[in-house]
Amino acid sequence: MTSELHERIECEALRRKLMPVEEAVRLVRNGDVLAVSGFTKAGEPKAFLPALARHLAGLGPDARITLYSGASLSEEVEGPLAPYIARRGPYMASSASRRLIHAGKMDYTDVHLSHFARGLMYGFYGDIDLAVVEVSRIRHDGSVVLSASVGVSAEALARARAVVLEVNTAIPDFTGVHDIVLPPAPPTIGWPVPVTGVRDRIGLPHVPLDPAKVVAVVHSRQPDFPVPFRADEAVCTHIADQVIAFLGECRDRFDWHHWVPPLQSGVGNIANAVIAGLARSPFKRLHFWTEVFQEGLLGLLADRDRFAGASAAALSLADTSPARVAALLAAARGDLLLRPMWMSNNPEVIARLHVVAMNTPLEVDIYGHVNSTHVEGSRIVNGLGGSGDFFRNAYLSIAHTPSVRTLRDGRTVSCVLPYVGHVDHTEHDIKCVVTEHGYATNFSIRSPRARARDIIDRCAHPHFRPLLQEYLAIAGEGDEPRLSPMDRLEGWWRQYDAACLAFPRAGATG
Amino acid sequence: MTSELHERIECEALRRKLMPVEEAVRLVRNGDVLAVSGFTKAGEPKAFLPALARHLAGLGPDARITLYSGASLSEEVEGPLAPYIARRGPYMASSASRRLIHAGKMDYTDVHLSHFARGLMYGFYGDIDLAVVEVSRIRHDGSVVLSASVGVSAEALARARAVVLEVNTAIPDFTGVHDIVLPPAPPTIGWPVPVTGVRDRIGLPHVPLDPAKVVAVVHSRQPDFPVPFRADEAVCTHIADQVIAFLGECRDRFDWHHWVPPLQSGVGNIANAVIAGLARSPFKRLHFWTEVFQEGLLGLLADRDRFAGASAAALSLADTSPARVAALLAAARGDLLLRPMWMSNNPEVIARLHVVAMNTPLEVDIYGHVNSTHVEGSRIVNGLGGSGDFFRNAYLSIAHTPSVRTLRDGRTVSCVLPYVGHVDHTEHDIKCVVTEHGYATNFSIRSPRARARDIIDRCAHPHFRPLLQEYLAIAGEGDEPRLSPMDRLEGWWRQYDAACLAFPRAGATG
Repeated sequence: MTSELHERIECEALRRKLMPVEEAVRLVRNGDVLAVSGFTKAGEPKAFLPALARHLAGLGPDARITLYSGASLSEEVEGPLAPYIARRGPYMASSASRRLIHAGKMDYTDVHLSHFARGLMYGFYGDIDLAVVEVSRIRHDGSVVLSASVGVSAEALARARAVVLEVNTAIPDFTGVHDIVLPPAPPTIGWPVPVTGVRDRIGLPHVPLDPAKVVAVVHSRQPDFPVPFRADEAVCTHIADQVIAFLGECRDRFDWHHWVPPLQSGVGNIANAVIAGLARSPFKRLHFWTEVFQEGLLGLLADRDRFAGASAAALSLADTSPARVAALLAAARGDLLLRPMWMSNNPEVIARLHVVAMNTPLEVDIYGHVNSTHVEGSRIVNGLGGSGDFFRNAYLSIAHTPSVRTLRDGRTVSCVLPYVGHVDHTEHDIKCVVTEHGYATNFSIRSPRARARDIIDRCAHPHFRPLLQEYLAIAGEGDEPRLSPMDRLEGWWRQYDAACLAFPRAGATG
Repeated sequence: MTSELHERIECEALRRKLMPVEEAVRLVRNGDVLAVSGFTKAGEPKAFLPALARHLAGLGPDARITLYSGASLSEEVEGPLAPYIARRGPYMASSASRRLIHAGKMDYTDVHLSHFARGLMYGFYGDIDLAVVEVSRIRHDGSVVLSASVGVSAEALARARAVVLEVNTAIPDFTGVHDIVLPPAPPTIGWPVPVTGVRDRIGLPHVPLDPAKVVAVVHSRQPDFPVPFRADEAVCTHIADQVIAFLGECRDRFDWHHWVPPLQSGVGNIANAVIAGLARSPFKRLHFWTEVFQEGLLGLLADRDRFAGASAAALSLADTSPARVAALLAAARGDLLLRPMWMSNNPEVIARLHVVAMNTPLEVDIYGHVNSTHVEGSRIVNGLGGSGDFFRNAYLSIAHTPSVRTLRDGRTVSCVLPYVGHVDHTEHDIKCVVTEHGYATNFSIRSPRARARDIIDRCAHPHFRPLLQEYLAIAGEGDEPRLSPMDRLEGWWRQYDAACLAFPRAGATG
């Protein structure tokens, strides 16, 4: 045992359970239910899971497991394992898993992240045979300090019959960054969560764990896989400008004065552009109650006038080199807390703090329904993750999307449609639809028809506006008219398909 | 002033503002925004609103107001007023309003009740010109004791520029029944709501009110309009039996032991049958965290072994005679609290108490999406009310519906469809679909396809099962396959329409 590893494992009983990862994976049997750490590529068991894929391959063609994680794992980790996963939840972002799910070879249930964490404790998802959790330290009593994500790790450790700890010495010691508390399960009634600010600590910095449940400790020296941070695209900057204009309108209209609501910002290009835009905006003292503390937020950290604290379930970075992560933790300590996803996504806190939720869906419809998950209504992309947890309970819920999207086959489709193929968020839950062309709010009492005209006129791409206006004109009776399949719908969709093909190549987003 | 009325108005300054209702309604001008008391016919201003309809009729053909209420008003009250309502929210159950909404003559926005109450305080719905609230007592300092509902009355009184109080001497004095607390509005952060049991009192028994805001006090002697309590139908009893079987399964599977989760039960035949079923069931010490304390619950009140307390936003009874209501209040005092709807429907409390939510939708689909509001996707019936507040945050969310419904034209349609015409609750939020044929749970990780087979086989009417199974077979690729409109959908719907016509007249629901 290296001195570095020795220092990270304070518990003598657990030092004795250290074993090569190839030996530890043999503890997994065909049919086991595994719950693993990992959330947006952060803090996953990077040594154990690839070795597990090799072990399962050796068990024969029918070997299958059930895999739960906090949220998405890296393709490097989930890809090789995918053929051996029979059941997967509550979220994934693996192309290998996606193919198997679409082909009916992997069963996947898309669950609100906060629901899944609670459901795990409630017994909804049955027994867990093995929890596999990356930790940055094992304390003297066997309790553990997690790493770059919390996700569902604490629930997994509490519920699993057996535990494998993957001690990662290539990452900094995260002691002091986490705030761990478990959801109370029936018949135990819950308690009022005493969080009234993003930096409020209400739990423990470590996860209690009975060392007797630990069946193996393995050593990892693999930093987290980086989450690509893509450069600004013009369309994202335009969307960000609209988001900031909307927030400015709300500040004036709803008398925020110097207050800025805590922000939940998703992952990806648009979220990055919004953060970059906020850094240039008149909004000061920003605080974040969010799922993922992502690369784009780092730029704010140094500016004490701009950054007032953050709470998240994971730290998802583009550069995960150990020195950089250590420097970040040192800079943010006290201002950044990583929490279990039932808490990061807790409706109670999201409502109480008046969080502004911002997420990028696949498409929206003219009445304000949102599809976050299924292409053409049938094929899941990743999952809805925490978008429902946040949208449903936010003070302001913002669905931001480019107005059009270019498919692999070259066609350009509208992201504003008469109706979405799959509804993940209902029109009741969305306060603002944003595209690069503008934003449409949902504050007043008015007819769905009036809201539709607003979304079409402000948010739809000009190329598709006339067609959407025509839909509304021919859609017939009712307050939220929808053409029935037997009606003139087929004709309309033929026109729409023709418009997608006719979309001009240049200026596609402007 | 009668001695009875004198006794009910303790505040001398407000006694002086007593005026005939025909005079008070003249304070309403064309274009005014009114927020009124009333929730499921309980506690509405029964003298003022009909007089207001006559006043507005006298203002000329273009006179229009905006009308907010807690939830539904009686047809007797809303019907005559409907032609003068330009904008209506957040809920209605008036056939007169419905016709105008469908015809595009009244703008209606369907809002989650908890969102609407919060939004009113947040300023989302603008200024309120006049609050009109039925009260059972005006206290010495001008603060008021509400009557059979709380709904959005406290927010209306807080936000309105002017107030009309309708003192009803035909109803008992409700002092001690209410628990009033307002939602904190940005930039003020909320606090942890200290409710951990249905009988926990956290606010005031009255609503504070500045007497200077009161522009008129009117006298009413009209008891609430009764809410019909229909007799058990066999299909409702069968549904209730399935609900109770499901709860029994959960008790055993999730180790409730003697605990029974608080119940939210909707209004109507099925809800009544469920309550009646529970009264005969092995479940003891029932407690209710619900929107409406309805007639069906009265039978439980007398049985202290059966009834352990209730919290609701309104008291909605089939017999509203004053003596009966007074007897009920005397019997239930301390065990029954009426709360503002942002609190009765508060996600924080619903999640914490592990509430079982039960609501009757219009239709469900094979994947678990639920339509609570729109017939044929286009025409609103009432609104979603609190169903989303409860379904989304419940421990167990139960959508119960007959498997088929007979339309006015004699056709019998399936309430289990390939997809619903309007999604009010997503598949993520529903833990159990129940019909008279059985129940289908959503606890494990499995494919949407497998869930669909389960819902079809257990819940769909046998007459429609083969067709639904065929849909799933031909629906094509993807994890949650849906026929595109350009596909073979039209053919399937033709078959479905034929099946509706061919539904056997006898044994329609069995």
